[in-house]
Amino acid sequence: MAELPDKATRLIEWYLDVVEAAQLTDKRYGVKGMNVWTPYGFQARRQLDAVMIREIEATGSVPVEFPTLIPQTEFQKEKDHIKGFDAQVYWVTRGGATPLDIPLVLRPTSETAMYPVFALWVRSHRDLPLNVYQIVNTFRYETKTTRPFIRVREIHFFEEHTCQVDEAAATARVASNLAAFAGMARAFVLPFLAIRRPEWDKFPGAFYSVALDIPIGGARTLQIGSIHHYRENFSGPYGIRYEAADGAQRLVHQTTFGLSERLLGAVVAVHGDQKGAVFPPALAPCQVVVIPIPGKPGAPDPTPAARALAAELTARGLRVEVDLSEERPGAKYYRHELRGVPLRLEIGAREAAAGTATAVDRLGQKRLLGPQGLAEAVVRALSDFEQALREAAEARFAAAFSVARSLSELKGSSRVRVLRWCGAEACGREVETAIDGSLLGTPEGPLPFPVEGEGGCIACGSTAGTRWALAAQPL
Amino acid sequence: MAELPDKATRLIEWYLDVVEAAQLTDKRYGVKGMNVWTPYGFQARRQLDAVMIREIEATGSVPVEFPTLIPQTEFQKEKDHIKGFDAQVYWVTRGGATPLDIPLVLRPTSETAMYPVFALWVRSHRDLPLNVYQIVNTFRYETKTTRPFIRVREIHFFEEHTCQVDEAAATARVASNLAAFAGMARAFVLPFLAIRRPEWDKFPGAFYSVALDIPIGGARTLQIGSIHHYRENFSGPYGIRYEAADGAQRLVHQTTFGLSERLLGAVVAVHGDQKGAVFPPALAPCQVVVIPIPGKPGAPDPTPAARALAAELTARGLRVEVDLSEERPGAKYYRHELRGVPLRLEIGAREAAAGTATAVDRLGQKRLLGPQGLAEAVVRALSDFEQALREAAEARFAAAFSVARSLSELKGSSRVRVLRWCGAEACGREVETAIDGSLLGTPEGPLPFPVEGEGGCIACGSTAGTRWALAAQPL
Repeated sequence: MAELPDKATRLIEWYLDVVEAAQLTDKRYGVKGMNVWTPYGFQARRQLDAVMIREIEATGSVPVEFPTLIPQTEFQKEKDHIKGFDAQVYWVTRGGATPLDIPLVLRPTSETAMYPVFALWVRSHRDLPLNVYQIVNTFRYETKTTRPFIRVREIHFFEEHTCQVDEAAATARVASNLAAFAGMARAFVLPFLAIRRPEWDKFPGAFYSVALDIPIGGARTLQIGSIHHYRENFSGPYGIRYEAADGAQRLVHQTTFGLSERLLGAVVAVHGDQKGAVFPPALAPCQVVVIPIPGKPGAPDPTPAARALAAELTARGLRVEVDLSEERPGAKYYRHELRGVPLRLEIGAREAAAGTATAVDRLGQKRLLGPQGLAEAVVRALSDFEQALREAAEARFAAAFSVARSLSELKGSSRVRVLRWCGAEACGREVETAIDGSLLGTPEGPLPFPVEGEGGCIACGSTAGTRWALAAQPL
Repeated sequence: MAELPDKATRLIEWYLDVVEAAQLTDKRYGVKGMNVWTPYGFQARRQLDAVMIREIEATGSVPVEFPTLIPQTEFQKEKDHIKGFDAQVYWVTRGGATPLDIPLVLRPTSETAMYPVFALWVRSHRDLPLNVYQIVNTFRYETKTTRPFIRVREIHFFEEHTCQVDEAAATARVASNLAAFAGMARAFVLPFLAIRRPEWDKFPGAFYSVALDIPIGGARTLQIGSIHHYRENFSGPYGIRYEAADGAQRLVHQTTFGLSERLLGAVVAVHGDQKGAVFPPALAPCQVVVIPIPGKPGAPDPTPAARALAAELTARGLRVEVDLSEERPGAKYYRHELRGVPLRLEIGAREAAAGTATAVDRLGQKRLLGPQGLAEAVVRALSDFEQALREAAEARFAAAFSVARSLSELKGSSRVRVLRWCGAEACGREVETAIDGSLLGTPEGPLPFPVEGEGGCIACGSTAGTRWALAAQPL
């Protein structure tokens, strides 16, 4: 097999090779940017969805599903929104040989599908909050280069839409979404930034947008989701009103929370290495692979011991495979490392006789487990692996930033930049030019690390309203 | 609330009222035939999917997901298939303002999306069988009257696609699918017929089709799925070949197995009554509702006892709600009956003090449970309810048929007709005219009930090749 490109210097080529070699996706489908979820990729996605569902339902959100197609008339009700999406939606114009009276849009996101129905569902303050979510596919006629999981034309998408009694309740929902995402990010072992986007980069129609950005190496970040506060920007045009306790008719304040399959791309980009993908246990389609190692001719067969251990681990709720293929052990190790399996258990004749197993985790940590409490030891090894993965990811996160005090310092770094910004668009644009990237915006809450000395705007020097901001080269 | 139409005489009106009143669907979306999966309907669908996934994965099938959009060029490769679907597909012709070079079809089913990729995946006999399935939405530009879950334009669809080494292996896969469906039907408490469709009614491109039909009252049946044997009809045009053990290149034989949200429609139609929906426990979004009944002013509050029991039942894995709304108990009973909740537990001050609960199942069976082993007694009551539901459904199934020995007898019955048929299309058409319905075809295996005396074809009298057949009025 060919070696993977160097991750440190050729991140994108490395990424593209890994997702295909690990068989997470098949991009040989007949429409560019619409890829096949392979059996292995689908299992990773299933775990991803399970974590998202667990965390969002814990906040009282309930699943629904709205249609994929949106009538043009509804799609165009909110002016900024339609401007933001008009160039990148797919249009259905014919049914059989018949031109449709009203063309239909393949949803790029579901505000305009849901909100006419929300106007029917919400009548009284007793109907609020309305917190619903769906996991569906969305579509974008993407004209840039497509990349599996990161920029695709059919997107596996999580979207929560909520209606709240007032602006404060909507602001509180944004905070609740941030907390739910922190739970997901913990399971995926993804240190992240929550950054309020500048005005010129917010979601079309939003009051403000908080993006969820993952540093993935060098000056690069990947936005894997966002949380938006809409105030009354959509409830006005769509007429989502309720009768308040005092009898007054009021518009609801809305929020949305979106995440996509980019999460899976981020997991690959953050944890992968020169051997391939590395899955955190919560996401791994296969958490433990058990490999019987045949001995010399005549030696006892370790397969029954391997099978028995796998059955015991499966009974404990782990996702386990026994690899009985005819490959050499070395070829098996190579393949399961490429696929990112967290833990490999090797069982030769000696281990089989002793009731032990040699465990090698995906970070290379090797130890002999058993014979006492073998299954518990496997569970512990998996948890130790997760801890080591977390420490490594957090160390890289801590080293991902550099503070720039001047435009020339901005240019000189190959990390995610931290800088002071007065909030003016002109100054933001200067920053973007200097780094040939984007001003991500201002962090929600404190910076994720301590910095001394605040100072004036990096572009104009003003101290009025100046805050910390981050700038990067989005992937 | 308005009474439901009489189910026995006005099945369709009754059905339409029940699915809306039970809040299983909302059809006020802006595209006719594309309905909203409400929170309650979505939960029913989630249980439906869980059963389908459990049964199909037990047969070694693995989940995948192929894109929603299919290039026109791939869509048109199999001649009969395209003829069958051409009039009822949605076409995407524009991305943004740009006309697409190759128009895209919204999948009506996924043969033409999957098979070009199967041709890449299948190389050797070691890659076979390939058994994959997906649960996705499909689209049909339906020109007939639409009805929630039964005839819609966006369909929640389960589809398995397999590649086998030869015709016999494909025939065995059809049998395996039938067994998997029997497991699903058992969970949904749906007695069913597996019927090989006549030539003129098979799936476009199939060698033969076995339909899964559910008698739903009178002469009516509802087809909720089908299993198809394709032989080499698709593998030829799509070039799905493998190298056999002897080195020869051979085309695979294929099968598919499709089920849709019609299953949910069938559950409503088969089990529902004049009070509304009736869910079998395996499908019920809420299996047990606990209702505290307030006593006279000053009496002890039964709410804590209701909550404690609900928590205990939830811990046992049941789906439980406590109804603390401000309605009168009678209004609550009415609403939960309409929604089809299998079991209601009433807890008043007396029950709370004694540690008991009054249980009323959805068929009206009432009993006092506890205080010894209260939670176990609830589980048993739910299982007794399922058994009673099964017996009632099986009794109706057994009475659903009438044997017709002549064309005039065919006309005179309002049941599903059982008749002798020689296999000729002309005779089949005579049957269809006589009953103003469809010849469903010939049962796979024996008839589901004993019949004496075989005799000749009901239309031409011939005994050559004559078999039992069924005819009905499909909903």
